[in-house]
Amino acid sequence: MSSPLLDHCPPTLPAAAYTDADWYAREVAAIWRREWVHVGRLSDLPLGTIRPVTVAGAGVILCRSGDGALSVFHNSCRHRGAEICAVEAPLGKLVTCPYHAWAYAARDGRLVSTAFATPTADFDRSEHGLVPVAHHVWAGSIFVSLAADPPVFAPDLGLGALDNWPMERLVTGHRLVKDLACNWKVFWENYNECLHCPGIHPELSDLVPIYREGIMSEAERPGGAVHGNRSTLKDGAETWSLDGRTCGPAFEGLTEAQRATAANFVTVYPTAFFVAHVDYARVVTITPTGPESMRLTAEWLFTPETMGQQGFDPAKVAAFATIVLEQDGAAAEMNQRGMRSPAYQHGRLMPQEFDLHHFHHWVMTRLEQPVAQTGQSGAQGDLS
Amino acid sequence: MSSPLLDHCPPTLPAAAYTDADWYAREVAAIWRREWVHVGRLSDLPLGTIRPVTVAGAGVILCRSGDGALSVFHNSCRHRGAEICAVEAPLGKLVTCPYHAWAYAARDGRLVSTAFATPTADFDRSEHGLVPVAHHVWAGSIFVSLAADPPVFAPDLGLGALDNWPMERLVTGHRLVKDLACNWKVFWENYNECLHCPGIHPELSDLVPIYREGIMSEAERPGGAVHGNRSTLKDGAETWSLDGRTCGPAFEGLTEAQRATAANFVTVYPTAFFVAHVDYARVVTITPTGPESMRLTAEWLFTPETMGQQGFDPAKVAAFATIVLEQDGAAAEMNQRGMRSPAYQHGRLMPQEFDLHHFHHWVMTRLEQPVAQTGQSGAQGDLS
Amino acid sequence: MSSPLLDHCPPTLPAAAYTDADWYAREVAAIWRREWVHVGRLSDLPLGTIRPVTVAGAGVILCRSGDGALSVFHNSCRHRGAEICAVEAPLGKLVTCPYHAWAYAARDGRLVSTAFATPTADFDRSEHGLVPVAHHVWAGSIFVSLAADPPVFAPDLGLGALDNWPMERLVTGHRLVKDLACNWKVFWENYNECLHCPGIHPELSDLVPIYREGIMSEAERPGGAVHGNRSTLKDGAETWSLDGRTCGPAFEGLTEAQRATAANFVTVYPTAFFVAHVDYARVVTITPTGPESMRLTAEWLFTPETMGQQGFDPAKVAAFATIVLEQDGAAAEMNQRGMRSPAYQHGRLMPQEFDLHHFHHWVMTRLEQPVAQTGQSGAQGDLS
Repeated sequence: MSSPLLDHCPPTLPAAAYTDADWYAREVAAIWRREWVHVGRLSDLPLGTIRPVTVAGAGVILCRSGDGALSVFHNSCRHRGAEICAVEAPLGKLVTCPYHAWAYAARDGRLVSTAFATPTADFDRSEHGLVPVAHHVWAGSIFVSLAADPPVFAPDLGLGALDNWPMERLVTGHRLVKDLACNWKVFWENYNECLHCPGIHPELSDLVPIYREGIMSEAERPGGAVHGNRSTLKDGAETWSLDGRTCGPAFEGLTEAQRATAANFVTVYPTAFFVAHVDYARVVTITPTGPESMRLTAEWLFTPETMGQQGFDPAKVAAFATIVLEQDGAAAEMNQRGMRSPAYQHGRLMPQEFDLHHFHHWVMTRLEQPVAQTGQSGAQGDLS
Repeated sequence: MSSPLLDHCPPTLPAAAYTDADWYAREVAAIWRREWVHVGRLSDLPLGTIRPVTVAGAGVILCRSGDGALSVFHNSCRHRGAEICAVEAPLGKLVTCPYHAWAYAARDGRLVSTAFATPTADFDRSEHGLVPVAHHVWAGSIFVSLAADPPVFAPDLGLGALDNWPMERLVTGHRLVKDLACNWKVFWENYNECLHCPGIHPELSDLVPIYREGIMSEAERPGGAVHGNRSTLKDGAETWSLDGRTCGPAFEGLTEAQRATAANFVTVYPTAFFVAHVDYARVVTITPTGPESMRLTAEWLFTPETMGQQGFDPAKVAAFATIVLEQDGAAAEMNQRGMRSPAYQHGRLMPQEFDLHHFHHWVMTRLEQPVAQTGQSGAQGDLS
Repeated sequence: MSSPLLDHCPPTLPAAAYTDADWYAREVAAIWRREWVHVGRLSDLPLGTIRPVTVAGAGVILCRSGDGALSVFHNSCRHRGAEICAVEAPLGKLVTCPYHAWAYAARDGRLVSTAFATPTADFDRSEHGLVPVAHHVWAGSIFVSLAADPPVFAPDLGLGALDNWPMERLVTGHRLVKDLACNWKVFWENYNECLHCPGIHPELSDLVPIYREGIMSEAERPGGAVHGNRSTLKDGAETWSLDGRTCGPAFEGLTEAQRATAANFVTVYPTAFFVAHVDYARVVTITPTGPESMRLTAEWLFTPETMGQQGFDPAKVAAFATIVLEQDGAAAEMNQRGMRSPAYQHGRLMPQEFDLHHFHHWVMTRLEQPVAQTGQSGAQGDLS
């Protein structure tokens, strides 16, 4: 494996990328209403349930039928736009708007009834079903794309890394939700480098010795390295936890390298990253809520067997990564505050920030694409 | 009477009409700072009182002299713009600015004194009176228009419907003020159709049987109808109240049809609607406070004789319509939430939504007019 | 001295100057990020301290070394823009960014270390020091300019008036901080005329008799005047205080006129005014926080000897001017409210408002200048 280090120090994105309302609007259109966005774990959505979620400000309803089928629609009635579903509720065969009782088939969104309204012949019911939203389940997680022509689901960073983990079987044991006063990209940038580890993460740098040097793998050392695994736990430690002990039986079928690695990552830009350990996993979801704000959601995932152990406390397992995430959140907010300076125009990346450079390219490539309209097409008619 | 039903299903206003800041600014200029706006009941403004009110964000003062004369001005001093009146207060012959003591005649706004300031000859006092605001009292209610050339006061929906009620004599017995998270037009749209009645208003649909069918009158039935009154109370009920009983003597001089009708409406776009029953009336005022917010004010009006009855409780009378208004407010907010969906571009009106269609035309006709400036004319001079 | 009275009644600035977001942005760029802005008293910044302050929304750090040297920088790291300093802290020879431990020399901002990062040859450390901010100490107060080419520090109103006061020796005994709902210029306009004194400041008009006439000096009387001092205390009063008594020994070296004058002013647009009395002084700082909001900070300054008097209570001394400042703040907010009226386009100045007229010229002269960029120059590179 050759060195991943950058051979020069490129500029970062400009300051406006982190504070400007127009830039943010462009990202919402070109990235957040186009790419696949994580909206939760399938196992957390009970059979026969309808649930409203918000994707980059857009209301969406997840419909899971009694037999497990999943359908997803925009949360807006085709009559006069009312919100179809305000709170999670049981789901039957129909989705009924609470305003004028228009009813749609839960499976495909087809308009079944206009209740007391009696449309004239110019109204074509087949063109007035709920507007569908593309969805895809991967590793037990539900992803949706608001694009009319969604991209292929193909996260480009480490997609195969979790193949040896039974991700679909894992259930959520603990959840952390935290609002941060920073642009969503700042959190991803923090995720993408370990130069900050010695100063920001003393506990993590103790658990994973190479982090004390500000690097993520042997490969970052001058002259490159042989194996290049990203992170090996310190002697005697088995997983990410306060005492380094595992919380249940190790997953079967992991390679030796996977067992030795502190954390096996899969990055799904722009929405989430998965981290798998020898005994559990977690998924961290990043949701923008404005140019300078975001929501962080972390979910800790365990096998049903681990969850069923006498006296098992998932919050205790979550305590270690919670410390790390809180440190990352504070660092990201600190970064955001400084970016508001009129003296800040752009920064410079260091050779170790190769993943961050890749992320900047990922963002800019999408912003440079022409943006298609969301949802249904069709010109707005006049009132006559 | 021929059928009022639409013969096709026209589109609604576009989604931007309910969420866009620029669209809203256009409405403020072309509608709210031009049309007649309800600012309260004349009988609620005591003789010898000055009161500040806000009309579409513009500060206005109502001056009622000791002999009952009403004058209305913009709440801004001609010296350096200070607010003339911050809270309701007694009024004499002069209105005095609290900042530099400039004094204006309460009756006509004429500048009477500049106090310690000694203007030079180029300052023409006769051009520096308080800027007047057009006003008109109808049915005991005060309306103002911020336009320099106000339109004729001529609400086009049912203006004569209350002629048999002694509206000027009625006094306010109860008031409800409620802020709603919806565009002001959404509330009007809800007001203009009864398709939502069966699902949203169970109590009202019990009181007025035809509402159970989602229609407002016999005329909406296929094939039309003979008399076409909008709503008849159920057998045994006499008025809009929890038990269907009246709260005092019936108004004299009503026609048989007026007595039989559950509610006699007058609509004064964009600001208010009046509802008259056999024993009392009410006025509901709609005030926009932003693109996605409004204030609802309902006032229940009674004769002094009814108010003077032993043990009379106007809040008890108001309880029924309060239930209905709260249901309408919740429905309007639900409609607004769904309209924010990027998939919502516009809806489709049903044949029963003929009043709503008329309202859309009312709005668009005004938005298409060129907008004149508010208040005084005159170019801004330079500083020399 | 000839009469300062205006010979005509010019218009004020237009209403937009006090409410419009674009106008405000222009002022921030052309005035607040260019002119000298007061950021506090040097004696309030201990030796060996780093302190973050905000100047018109821009984060700035004040660094005072152990030997008293002052350096000022933008609060943004040159690596990826992190905030360098969030709270006041002890300062050594280096200023170290908490994110990735980049270290800069406190004295000149030179980049000393990039910690774990190993920049390639294309990264020139000498071009990545902290961005310096111009600073100037006058009368014991620290002023900074965010301009790359700051103007000469030369407040044009009464700069020499305090030469006989030992301003550098004075220490802060009391501080008032008050947020006001008005544009920053409204407060300055209030400061610049006394027509409001009889109505707004009864206590002050009692202490300084000429204020009862709405004027600031004999010179404003028709026909002019001989000496023209701005304000003489009433008989028996010695200074601005509740009882007219001084709080400590009078400053030595004042002229007879300075002792007789109630308040000796120096105006430093746009940021502060100094007021010197026979026994103490104060500085009032005006900070805009938005188009319609500002922060007022008043600091009362005494000699160490006065402060050291047995039982001395600076808050008691401050009580009088606090009453006056609260009255001015309420008047400014009242003025702002009235300026939002759509009927208000501009006002007219009275002959006595000559200082206010001068202030308007000061503002407009700066807004008409082309605005240079803040801080460092250099085009933004591409990402390659």
